[in-house]
Amino acid sequence: MQINEAKTTELQKEIKELRANHNKFISSNLKLDLTRGKPSTAQLNLSNQLLETVKPENATHDGLDLRNYGVLDGLPSAKRLFGEILGIPETEASERVFIGGNSSLNLMHNVVSFAYYLGLKKDDTPWIKQLDSGQKIKMLCPCPGYDRHFSLCTQLGIEMIPVNLTGSGPDMDQVESFVKNDQSIKGIWCVPRFANPTGEVYSEDVVNRIAALGKQASKNFLVLWDNAYAVHSITPDAAKLTSIDSAAKEHGTSDSIIQFGSTSKITFAGAGIAFLASSVNNVNGFTSHFGKTSIGSDKINQARHVRFLKNIDGVKNHMKKHADIVGPKFNAVIDALENNLKNSGMGEWSSPKGGYFVSFNTLPGLAKRVVQLAAEAGVKLTPAGATFPEGKDPHDRNIRLAPTYPELNDVKKAMEVFVNCVKLASVESQIVS
Amino acid sequence: MQINEAKTTELQKEIKELRANHNKFISSNLKLDLTRGKPSTAQLNLSNQLLETVKPENATHDGLDLRNYGVLDGLPSAKRLFGEILGIPETEASERVFIGGNSSLNLMHNVVSFAYYLGLKKDDTPWIKQLDSGQKIKMLCPCPGYDRHFSLCTQLGIEMIPVNLTGSGPDMDQVESFVKNDQSIKGIWCVPRFANPTGEVYSEDVVNRIAALGKQASKNFLVLWDNAYAVHSITPDAAKLTSIDSAAKEHGTSDSIIQFGSTSKITFAGAGIAFLASSVNNVNGFTSHFGKTSIGSDKINQARHVRFLKNIDGVKNHMKKHADIVGPKFNAVIDALENNLKNSGMGEWSSPKGGYFVSFNTLPGLAKRVVQLAAEAGVKLTPAGATFPEGKDPHDRNIRLAPTYPELNDVKKAMEVFVNCVKLASVESQIVS
Repeated sequence: MQINEAKTTELQKEIKELRANHNKFISSNLKLDLTRGKPSTAQLNLSNQLLETVKPENATHDGLDLRNYGVLDGLPSAKRLFGEILGIPETEASERVFIGGNSSLNLMHNVVSFAYYLGLKKDDTPWIKQLDSGQKIKMLCPCPGYDRHFSLCTQLGIEMIPVNLTGSGPDMDQVESFVKNDQSIKGIWCVPRFANPTGEVYSEDVVNRIAALGKQASKNFLVLWDNAYAVHSITPDAAKLTSIDSAAKEHGTSDSIIQFGSTSKITFAGAGIAFLASSVNNVNGFTSHFGKTSIGSDKINQARHVRFLKNIDGVKNHMKKHADIVGPKFNAVIDALENNLKNSGMGEWSSPKGGYFVSFNTLPGLAKRVVQLAAEAGVKLTPAGATFPEGKDPHDRNIRLAPTYPELNDVKKAMEVFVNCVKLASVESQIVS
Repeated sequence: MQINEAKTTELQKEIKELRANHNKFISSNLKLDLTRGKPSTAQLNLSNQLLETVKPENATHDGLDLRNYGVLDGLPSAKRLFGEILGIPETEASERVFIGGNSSLNLMHNVVSFAYYLGLKKDDTPWIKQLDSGQKIKMLCPCPGYDRHFSLCTQLGIEMIPVNLTGSGPDMDQVESFVKNDQSIKGIWCVPRFANPTGEVYSEDVVNRIAALGKQASKNFLVLWDNAYAVHSITPDAAKLTSIDSAAKEHGTSDSIIQFGSTSKITFAGAGIAFLASSVNNVNGFTSHFGKTSIGSDKINQARHVRFLKNIDGVKNHMKKHADIVGPKFNAVIDALENNLKNSGMGEWSSPKGGYFVSFNTLPGLAKRVVQLAAEAGVKLTPAGATFPEGKDPHDRNIRLAPTYPELNDVKKAMEVFVNCVKLASVESQIVS
């Protein structure tokens, strides 16, 4: 059925069936959850060996006793390995990579709050002192996006400006126009590969234009390059990401780029290693501020990771094992959507080749209703709106589906419920209107 | 020789001998280091078993998969154990204790910056918004104290007001007078047991008066109770610390007390567990802010600690083994001072019964000179002034000696050099004057 062309009688017949299905789901007391981008137990098991890599007899690494104080900015070997994931040449890693604790969100929060309150690099004016009183610092937010980027901005009082995504990154005409015309815009959030939640990969052109923003933007503008899914492809033909580091070097804008990454979805989600890479100036400034906030991060866990993953090839081989586990779950989601909603006019969706999410757009105004219906039927979805600043989707249509954590059969079952909810909400809306 | 009573001829004879000794030390090319409060290798070895407590087959704890996301505020079992170290009743631990990463400094930095920029509890006015523009937030700093407390204040632009220490805690008349008369004073730093560097333990009276400050001080005043050495006694007769939690309950001031602790000097200095305890209001406020900065701390390492230390008796037994290692090193320091400088009029020192430091006061104006002489002779000491805000000791007399990291024989050798440097600087100063 194509919903726009359906006759009222057809719709009335259809809705009966959809309601009957829905009631059947309700009475089967499902408890399914597609809310968060969490690795499954099978994925976590892939890294179990990590737990056994540092033992009492080998608690020295890079010539350091891992158990004692020392090393504010990370083990040299960890800088080389994780720098390579972010495209930092090995010879530059020691000065340009910083290894943190278990949370890249924490590194992002530090970068933004250092820049905001203190000035990131030596002698930088803090963002808040660059504005007249009453003005707010602003950040560009490609949408739909990652809720934790947004809640960080909300906490600090940073105003968020939504920017459209195109399927190959943010709408750069929009971005450039904002950046040139508003000196209070101090940054842009980017998840450049397998974006959360759309799954899109920024194109070469987009990466180049983002790298060039530092030349047009206000002073101390920062590209917050959250490369959370840098090595997280599901299919071998997934698009590669152009190196923003190389592009920034060409433009002479390296001080405007900060890359982030973590092993949260490579090894253990709660006990991985987070890292950042930027210019020497930025890393020095960051390290100096960070040194007032911590004695340095857990070196034992850094060494565990280096020993377990070994090198970039080790990382890639390891990620293939993840792909084998999550691939079928993504296929189950896409198959359910293709088989039930294709050419129905009831929604659009992404078909990502990596990352952790499928992004689904309902007809305008129906996302909340779909999430509510799914909840009634025992399927928990990310709250509608969560992918937009302040939790407000202007068209109430985006829903983020996260299929990695449940078992494959549960993903299939949850999608059966989901497509029925989408149909039900869509048909309801036609009959009412 | 009592330096004040010595004749010039005596001093001139003495200085020749001291210079000869000093030159002998210089030519023996020593490389000794009494700078930082670091555990020795033998101490770290005490906790090696910790590395083997979480294995692939037992990566579940408190019913949670330790490897995945989840739990922002710490494992329940970790809250109970580390809460007990801070005197929090077991039944209150789940709501009143927060378990962080590997750095208590990081928790302190978070508390102070949340209170300063955002307001710690729900609906609190941020400290910076409680003042007229141009005014500075102030913090009371008992001195000599811990340099990282001071550098944190410097970073945030908080003005530090030095307060005298009495041997049983801060001069409370001074503290109370400051707090009552200046609304811009928003906190006091305290290392209440085996203070860094004086080693003193706050008396019951002092603890009670500090607990009562919340009734007299400005709004949202915080006692930053850095109980870093809570269980770190060297001798069995070391003074116990009165529970500030109980005292604050009696005064109705629990919202003004934040306790901190860590296992940095219980297990591994670079890979321990940090924790804080406060009122339910404060912990809720802290957790809410913290949730914008991190996905939660490493639960695997929390479980390693709970399994290794087991309970408060396990902690106490473990700390006795530390005392057996560090006790002789402290004795070597005190013996060298007693045997060479007692009744000499050339200095005063603490004889701590726990903690990590011996505090030495030279004659006024000589600390820098002693540190410089020691450096010439191959003995690195903490820079003079480091124990005061902005690194400025008003009387240039305090030197912090940290004897735990070097081997016992090296401590003895370093102290031989040190006492000669103290004598040399003291006699020099008499001859010149």
